[in-house]
Amino acid sequence: MFITLEGPEGSGKTTQVPLLADFLRGRGHRVLTTREPGGTPIGDQIRQVLFSLDNKAMHPRSEILLFQASRAQLVETVIRPALAEGQLVLCDRYADSTLAYQGYGHGVDLGALREIIHFATGGLQPDLTIFLDIQVEEGLRRRDQGGDWNRLDDYQLDFHRRVRAGYLELIAAEPDRWLVINAAQPPDAVAAALQGALQQRLPLLG
Amino acid sequence: MFITLEGPEGSGKTTQVPLLADFLRGRGHRVLTTREPGGTPIGDQIRQVLFSLDNKAMHPRSEILLFQASRAQLVETVIRPALAEGQLVLCDRYADSTLAYQGYGHGVDLGALREIIHFATGGLQPDLTIFLDIQVEEGLRRRDQGGDWNRLDDYQLDFHRRVRAGYLELIAAEPDRWLVINAAQPPDAVAAALQGALQQRLPLLG
Repeated sequence: MFITLEGPEGSGKTTQVPLLADFLRGRGHRVLTTREPGGTPIGDQIRQVLFSLDNKAMHPRSEILLFQASRAQLVETVIRPALAEGQLVLCDRYADSTLAYQGYGHGVDLGALREIIHFATGGLQPDLTIFLDIQVEEGLRRRDQGGDWNRLDDYQLDFHRRVRAGYLELIAAEPDRWLVINAAQPPDAVAAALQGALQQRLPLLG
Repeated sequence: MFITLEGPEGSGKTTQVPLLADFLRGRGHRVLTTREPGGTPIGDQIRQVLFSLDNKAMHPRSEILLFQASRAQLVETVIRPALAEGQLVLCDRYADSTLAYQGYGHGVDLGALREIIHFATGGLQPDLTIFLDIQVEEGLRRRDQGGDWNRLDDYQLDFHRRVRAGYLELIAAEPDRWLVINAAQPPDAVAAALQGALQQRLPLLG
């Protein structure tokens, strides 16, 4: 089983992934956690290129292709082998992030993005995707740890609103694949809500 | 005008690019030379990831996407701006290399490659592509500088034969875009043949 976590900035994915992994391990599952971009030695080198402050001149299409290169490596050398030997894979961000951020957020053609994602993943799709939902302003406030989130200009705020609206469209188009969790609660409450929802959705997980 | 140079291993592209640039500059053109992968600070970082001996575990689809990421950056930040201000751009390898090596050589679907190339380049195609042609065995012998090219196993030799055959198919499909030069001559003779053929093909170049 391949489970991905998605959500806007400040939704707490990075906190929830290990909590969820522990919960599932406690129920006897072998769980592999990973993240995008990165998750492999080559992917981590790509992550460095993507996030280096020296690389602000990166063109959006170059950025998209680097994300896909990291994804192809992760899928083929980590995710598929783990799934093949019966592990449960939890991945912090996956293809939906590309559609939400680069597609809905930056306006890159969704059809072209889907083709490139298909090429990168060889068609591997998550069995289940957890969406940690939070209002954009609240998420950004959390991400900036109570700091001055107002430094975001209107453009950035609009961008993050388009990203969240994009996620909601992706969910509406494929409701059976998604599990939406209210992430505007303390982390423990989010974890409990997530575990309860998972047990209801996937009773086989125990 | 956007001119690319292609050819199998040992065909002498890297020697010919500066000779051709000098020839064209001598005729009053402003010439920018570049190469793939690389040609930009971000592209050079990608080139390092591609060619690092530590990265032998790279998956073919990840490799293809890294080449395209480097290409997108080169096209948008170097080639298009140079063309827009009237420079003549000479590029050592471009999209045809992806089709020849990854497509014909490694058997990746040509249609999928063309889509990704289109995304990476925004549709920018060369006005003219010079093919430095050489028999596979002779090219490999030259590349290895008279060394023991027989260390290549049959698989590698077959691969390079498929690459050259792929180039010949690309040329047959679009003969007006290509200029084929016999590269099995000394470098000076290749340069002279290239200059003569260019003057005939593009009298405006002077």
